[in-house]
Amino acid sequence: MSVKADEESVLGTAPEDWDYGRTGIWLIGARGSVATTAVIGLAAIASRLVKPVGCVTEQDTFHGACLPDYADFVVGGHDISGVSMVKRAEKLADAGMVPGHLVESVRAQLLEADGRVCSGYDPAGTAESQADAASRLSSDIVAFKETNGLRRVIVLDVASTEAPLDQLAEYHDIDLLKSALEDPARSVLPASSVAAYAAVLAGSPYICFTPSTALNVPALYELAGAFRVPTAGQDGKTGQTWLRSVLAPALAARGLEVLSWAGTNLLGGGDGATLADSRAVSAKLLSKNRGLHELTGGAVIPLHIDNVPDLGETKVAWDHIHVEGFLGSRLTIQTTWSAYDSMLAAPMILDLARLMTLADAAGETGHVGAFGFFFKDPWGSEEHSFAQQTHNLAEWALVASGRLLSDTGREQL
Amino acid sequence: MSVKADEESVLGTAPEDWDYGRTGIWLIGARGSVATTAVIGLAAIASRLVKPVGCVTEQDTFHGACLPDYADFVVGGHDISGVSMVKRAEKLADAGMVPGHLVESVRAQLLEADGRVCSGYDPAGTAESQADAASRLSSDIVAFKETNGLRRVIVLDVASTEAPLDQLAEYHDIDLLKSALEDPARSVLPASSVAAYAAVLAGSPYICFTPSTALNVPALYELAGAFRVPTAGQDGKTGQTWLRSVLAPALAARGLEVLSWAGTNLLGGGDGATLADSRAVSAKLLSKNRGLHELTGGAVIPLHIDNVPDLGETKVAWDHIHVEGFLGSRLTIQTTWSAYDSMLAAPMILDLARLMTLADAAGETGHVGAFGFFFKDPWGSEEHSFAQQTHNLAEWALVASGRLLSDTGREQL
Amino acid sequence: MSVKADEESVLGTAPEDWDYGRTGIWLIGARGSVATTAVIGLAAIASRLVKPVGCVTEQDTFHGACLPDYADFVVGGHDISGVSMVKRAEKLADAGMVPGHLVESVRAQLLEADGRVCSGYDPAGTAESQADAASRLSSDIVAFKETNGLRRVIVLDVASTEAPLDQLAEYHDIDLLKSALEDPARSVLPASSVAAYAAVLAGSPYICFTPSTALNVPALYELAGAFRVPTAGQDGKTGQTWLRSVLAPALAARGLEVLSWAGTNLLGGGDGATLADSRAVSAKLLSKNRGLHELTGGAVIPLHIDNVPDLGETKVAWDHIHVEGFLGSRLTIQTTWSAYDSMLAAPMILDLARLMTLADAAGETGHVGAFGFFFKDPWGSEEHSFAQQTHNLAEWALVASGRLLSDTGREQL
Amino acid sequence: MSVKADEESVLGTAPEDWDYGRTGIWLIGARGSVATTAVIGLAAIASRLVKPVGCVTEQDTFHGACLPDYADFVVGGHDISGVSMVKRAEKLADAGMVPGHLVESVRAQLLEADGRVCSGYDPAGTAESQADAASRLSSDIVAFKETNGLRRVIVLDVASTEAPLDQLAEYHDIDLLKSALEDPARSVLPASSVAAYAAVLAGSPYICFTPSTALNVPALYELAGAFRVPTAGQDGKTGQTWLRSVLAPALAARGLEVLSWAGTNLLGGGDGATLADSRAVSAKLLSKNRGLHELTGGAVIPLHIDNVPDLGETKVAWDHIHVEGFLGSRLTIQTTWSAYDSMLAAPMILDLARLMTLADAAGETGHVGAFGFFFKDPWGSEEHSFAQQTHNLAEWALVASGRLLSDTGREQL
Ligand SMILES: NC(=O)c1ccc[n+]([C@@H]2O[C@H](COP(=O)([O-])OP(=O)(O)OC[C@H]3O[C@@H](n4cnc5c(N)ncnc54)[C@H](O)[C@@H]3O)[C@@H](O)[C@H]2O)c1
Ligand SMILES: NC(=O)c1ccc[n+]([C@@H]2O[C@H](COP(=O)([O-])OP(=O)(O)OC[C@H]3O[C@@H](n4cnc5c(N)ncnc54)[C@H](O)[C@@H]3O)[C@@H](O)[C@H]2O)c1
Ligand SMILES: NC(=O)c1ccc[n+]([C@@H]2O[C@H](COP(=O)([O-])OP(=O)(O)OC[C@H]3O[C@@H](n4cnc5c(N)ncnc54)[C@H](O)[C@@H]3O)[C@@H](O)[C@H]2O)c1
Ligand SMILES: NC(=O)c1ccc[n+]([C@@H]2O[C@H](COP(=O)([O-])OP(=O)(O)OC[C@H]3O[C@@H](n4cnc5c(N)ncnc54)[C@H](O)[C@@H]3O)[C@@H](O)[C@H]2O)c1
Ligand code: NA
Ligand code: NA
Repeated sequence: MSVKADEESVLGTAPEDWDYGRTGIWLIGARGSVATTAVIGLAAIASRLVKPVGCVTEQDTFHGACLPDYADFVVGGHDISGVSMVKRAEKLADAGMVPGHLVESVRAQLLEADGRVCSGYDPAGTAESQADAASRLSSDIVAFKETNGLRRVIVLDVASTEAPLDQLAEYHDIDLLKSALEDPARSVLPASSVAAYAAVLAGSPYICFTPSTALNVPALYELAGAFRVPTAGQDGKTGQTWLRSVLAPALAARGLEVLSWAGTNLLGGGDGATLADSRAVSAKLLSKNRGLHELTGGAVIPLHIDNVPDLGETKVAWDHIHVEGFLGSRLTIQTTWSAYDSMLAAPMILDLARLMTLADAAGETGHVGAFGFFFKDPWGSEEHSFAQQTHNLAEWALVASGRLLSDTGREQL
Repeated sequence: MSVKADEESVLGTAPEDWDYGRTGIWLIGARGSVATTAVIGLAAIASRLVKPVGCVTEQDTFHGACLPDYADFVVGGHDISGVSMVKRAEKLADAGMVPGHLVESVRAQLLEADGRVCSGYDPAGTAESQADAASRLSSDIVAFKETNGLRRVIVLDVASTEAPLDQLAEYHDIDLLKSALEDPARSVLPASSVAAYAAVLAGSPYICFTPSTALNVPALYELAGAFRVPTAGQDGKTGQTWLRSVLAPALAARGLEVLSWAGTNLLGGGDGATLADSRAVSAKLLSKNRGLHELTGGAVIPLHIDNVPDLGETKVAWDHIHVEGFLGSRLTIQTTWSAYDSMLAAPMILDLARLMTLADAAGETGHVGAFGFFFKDPWGSEEHSFAQQTHNLAEWALVASGRLLSDTGREQL
Repeated sequence: MSVKADEESVLGTAPEDWDYGRTGIWLIGARGSVATTAVIGLAAIASRLVKPVGCVTEQDTFHGACLPDYADFVVGGHDISGVSMVKRAEKLADAGMVPGHLVESVRAQLLEADGRVCSGYDPAGTAESQADAASRLSSDIVAFKETNGLRRVIVLDVASTEAPLDQLAEYHDIDLLKSALEDPARSVLPASSVAAYAAVLAGSPYICFTPSTALNVPALYELAGAFRVPTAGQDGKTGQTWLRSVLAPALAARGLEVLSWAGTNLLGGGDGATLADSRAVSAKLLSKNRGLHELTGGAVIPLHIDNVPDLGETKVAWDHIHVEGFLGSRLTIQTTWSAYDSMLAAPMILDLARLMTLADAAGETGHVGAFGFFFKDPWGSEEHSFAQQTHNLAEWALVASGRLLSDTGREQL
Repeated sequence: MSVKADEESVLGTAPEDWDYGRTGIWLIGARGSVATTAVIGLAAIASRLVKPVGCVTEQDTFHGACLPDYADFVVGGHDISGVSMVKRAEKLADAGMVPGHLVESVRAQLLEADGRVCSGYDPAGTAESQADAASRLSSDIVAFKETNGLRRVIVLDVASTEAPLDQLAEYHDIDLLKSALEDPARSVLPASSVAAYAAVLAGSPYICFTPSTALNVPALYELAGAFRVPTAGQDGKTGQTWLRSVLAPALAARGLEVLSWAGTNLLGGGDGATLADSRAVSAKLLSKNRGLHELTGGAVIPLHIDNVPDLGETKVAWDHIHVEGFLGSRLTIQTTWSAYDSMLAAPMILDLARLMTLADAAGETGHVGAFGFFFKDPWGSEEHSFAQQTHNLAEWALVASGRLLSDTGREQL
């Protein structure tokens, strides 16, 4: 933190003054619940209708960081659904999640953003090769950037969770992969990977908020690496998994040994329906449990996700933690979590957009490990403890801001 | 942590090798549940019957610290109860808290420790002046030290919780206090303060694990200060309050605002019976809520403690946390905690004894703020976040060990 | 149930056809949360906008009972607040409790009902004697009946909970009480008792949904008895207490012995604010625990109610039940209840109005014990088991309907 | 209940005086946790070491029923495990479930009972035809009866849960089934069915406490019917399912509509290990959910059972109940259940043995529907409401006792 203090004195300028120009946020899954809530929130915060409660970057520890203003973001995206953001927002209001009057207040901005939504890539029933699809998606992003006079576009994947991947030889060989991509008869990559590829082709920083495959194809990641953009992921750590990453390290700090950590999730909404598919849910379960496995060093950790449509947008999660303490004694902790899931994710979308703008400006490339704070399955980091991640993120923001201000960032090149 | 690395290379000696000689642990309330459990555990760990699960000082982050061996501790203490440690241990075994075979295995050590328990100070029905009482208690400690060839004696208050104090002029004026102490007709100080005073008179480091008044009398603290011993407190942070100090900062780190945090505690055992007294419980409630008040910045925090004798040694605590998130949305977290209370406290007693031995050897005097890790109401520190306290404690241990090894400690004088 | 079958065959007429004419519902506390919700619901059900979910009298077991139609009720009442039902309804909608569009749909009916609300009796700052007050209130009820062409008026107390009463000689001596009532300088009775007295003076069946004193003044009850109206109470059993009256008898049926049953309630809203007063809360606590005391035969039953304003209209209740089973083993059950409190009370108001109409028509006078189903502290019954109460209520309804149809009811006299 | 009163006056004899002689309890799975706990309890109650807490037949409502004394039971059984009851009892004591001193006190009785345990039927690796196996098992029961001078033997299945069955033609055709049973090369029936068949062959009343197939093979049930013994089942309703059968009817009685009822079970022990097998667990899940399905009329009811070995003999169950109330409002109830599972089952084993003795003596044959009180999946009854079952069971006991006393029972023939 002394970094920050020094800079101010040296430069005689408040870091917040950095001029990023206008920045684009490109949402893959732009008409989904998380995306729509983020757009409502962005508009409401930019118009000062609400305070940015739930935004990490508003905390004191980020006061010295150079972050773009909410009002300087422009939103667009891809989706494969024809239900507009406005319709979706109305549904969310009916479900009691978003206040109806707020939707009314930002209806214009929702309409505007929805007008910038292009057709996503849907592997089902398309004739185009994946190479063509990626280049089409990429052009959409570039066009968005140019039309709106944006200095950069942050691409964020908030589309439906996909099933996990079977292994193919193409995933480990760039040349094999490339030719498979050219073949219109094949759908070698899942949609999330095509979309991620399109982002890097467009030179855009890319963030994966879902547990889908995305860049987790070695050959694709190699390919993407050549474009030298910053990337971050994976799978937003918003609820139960977050709570676990808070509690598990604290138990460990006291020398208490977790024997088992059993959990259940109940959720409805779009995400609930998607996860009712046993293949999609398995991707999510793996992603949710990875951190806990690390943090507890191999406790028994059964976990379930149930689609309970009547819960609507609410997610309820129960955890039962069985711990060994002094002289073989046992301790149990139970937690029940109940929240509108998208309300936890949406402010993180805004935080990630702001921080990724800084990362890009400050010249980061590849996985930004410090963004592990936001993810169940952090790319570029082995750290799962939330307290440590909190520390790391704030430190990164100040160091990156320092680098930006001292002219070593990409911005000034 | 580089501190530690440097030292090793410079000194060419493993810090763990530091020779503390034999150290005394003097327990005020030596025949209580926490004390007895700590003595059982100390004996069992020293005899390698059990692993030191639940001991903070066994964690990796303390590997470089100079801490005394469990086997080098000798236990004595004060109590006003005639029920021996062995009897108490048997009761704890019957209640299912301590395994019966463990009590059998350490029966000899319990008998030995109990043989060193002297009559505590009981304000009810005594003719001695408090000055005389303090000097008697102090002599007990000094005799314990000499008889057993101890290099130092750590005094730990684990006696029953007292009612909070009404204010008196004597508490703010050393001379007034001194003459009140001489007056056999008066009981100006509560028992915990007399005991604390006796500890410092004996030149012993003093730790207050209870919410009782102890050194919280300004004039007494001033008096105690002259004896230049390290002190730490107050009120062990073992269960619900600990969990709160883990969760509250994590919520804050995400920009989520706690609106209310309501809690209930159910407990039986000796502590339950004591807290059934509405005056004693008010001391505990104040102490329990202070940290949460700081951490949440003024949320509504109703809290109850109920004496539920059928729960025996088990403590059950329920918390309901109501949080405001993005766009005015609400999040609720409930936690239920169930544990044998003394099983959480006892390993901390061992940790504190070890760390206070280091503190004393390394020349600390006055409140050791870094020990706030262990306390609901930390002396010498405003920090309540458990993650931050974890960091501070480990760092303190390494720095103090470094100081000790580089001959600046009191030990070598 | 054979009663019913017989009747139908004998009388050749569906009991549901009984013509009650128009019935009045007079709500004491008409602008409160429970009252307003009941009025919204009555209007919405009568207009077939919603189904009568939550109404007991809609269950199969009541199919043979003679009950008035929702559309035949007319609402009026007393209150001391100037905030209209419409305003209150809008607040409830803002709090997310009632759907906003529903309030819009029944706005006309709310306005109409609110137009029939008269000034209640407020002991604070009034010059009228309580005898005068009772007669004024009584006239309001009679005027309501005549103006609206009602055959009978059911009076329901849903006003704020009062503090419990200190004992006075007047409470046990009709003559003393009468003269105290005449004295304008005295407020011998609490407001709820004045209101209850007014109801019986008006010849109205009276129901006490609150834990306030009401008819629990022996001399007043004697006085009231002379008017030979049916009465029922007391304190709606809607949430935690209801759950207890379901679980406790079931545990007993299995020979399991409750050792302790500890509970906590968190609530905001008007009722929360009222109960923040330590005197009002003590009435409620007594009332809540009476049944459990009976059902468990003397277990330890600590109970708390906290005012947590941020919870708004939501009530959250936690119970921890500690049970002894086979061979001294222990079982614990925890329950957490979360609901909009008034949403549970309001349908009971409609049920009670319907059933009391039947009771009155069928010639019941004095406490109708079978209505204990609805109450924490049943008048005229010692039964607290919900299963038994369910059976009793349905049976009563059929028997009373049979009586009504066989011309023995008051109606035909 | 008048039945009972009448009888007493008519017969001039206390019903409790009925002389059943000595009765056998034959446990299939005699060395399991439930069986061993039941035997410990039977011995301890008969020797008046403990009170029969948890025994339904000790409740007031059974005071007029004719039931055998605990001291008149003799225990034997089948098992395929070589670990003796005494060893099992010691393990249960080590696990903290049974008090160690109790095991010591009844060691002689455990040894005696274990001495009467014969080899059960294990389909894996046996050369005998199932007809031979059934006749061998049957002879064991008959020999037990004769050797011990028993008037009747109640057979109770408390063996490990089996996987559910695939359908075969043999299950619907007695002749096909018979010839398959003769064929040593085939294992057409699961072990539970062979054991049940052996019981009826021996003329013994048979009770199925497990969710295994047992008599649920139409052709077998037909075959068994010829032997005219009373039968009861299936799958002991001890914990979560019991709680559901208490709560669901109570919600229905208030007109509240269950939208979803999601549950999770965590358990260790022998039963936990068995249910870790995904085929065995599916039998249990079906059986557990059947009643709830009936009671809620088709709510969403996801349910999980996890094997969590560190929980030992403890079962923890969490339920989340989402309910629709008045005007579309929502109510949630959560329950957490924690208990030693076998401690809930064992007293039911004793109750069932006593009640089945009465049933047999009173001439019942086929499924005794009134015993549905004890079962998740009641045979011979569609009733799942626990309150109704409680009523039915007590009534049955009195009526059957009346029949017995008026000489219409089988006993006197
Ligand atoms: N707390 C949270 O809400 C949270 C936390 C972590 C991760 N996530 C993840 O965020 C994602 C979005 O969640 P949601 O609740 O908004 O789901 P949602 O179902 O409401 O929205 C998903 C959107 O993605 C669109 N989509 C599907 N396939 C697409 C494709 N090939 N290209 C473009 N768009 C496509 C859908 O049409 C839909 O509009 C999910 O993967 C979820 O697992 C959410
Ligand atoms: N998790 C925990 O167990 C925990 C956490 C924080 C604080 N504490 C505090 O630790 C203390 C001990 O708890 P416990 O469960 O062991 O209680 P306990 O009642 O079992 O033991 C207290 C002992 O103190 C003795 N005592 C009372 N007055 C004394 C005096 N004037 N001088 C000497 N001895 C005296 C009593 O005789 C008794 O043996 C309590 O103040 C409690 O609030 C415990
Ligand atoms: N589930 C439930 O909601 C529930 C259950 C049991 C009992 N109750 C009882 O029902 C009552 C009403 O609850 P609420 O939530 O509607 O409370 P509320 O505070 O919203 O409403 C109470 C109303 O009573 C009015 N009032 C106060 N004193 C009065 C007087 N002397 N004469 C006439 N009116 C008066 C107030 O002005 C207010 O409008 C309370 O006593 C509560 O304890 C409610
Ligand atoms: N609360 C409860 O404990 C409860 C409730 C309902 C049902 N049940 C059922 O009761 C049964 C027993 O539970 P448990 O906890 O005692 O299990 P357990 O695993 O401790 O005991 C099962 C016993 O059955 C024996 N066995 C297995 N196959 C056999 C065979 N073919 N013939 C004879 N014996 C055989 C095993 O060797 C073992 O001794 C299970 O099916 C369980 O699902 C238990
Ligand atoms: Na990682
Ligand atoms: Na009563």
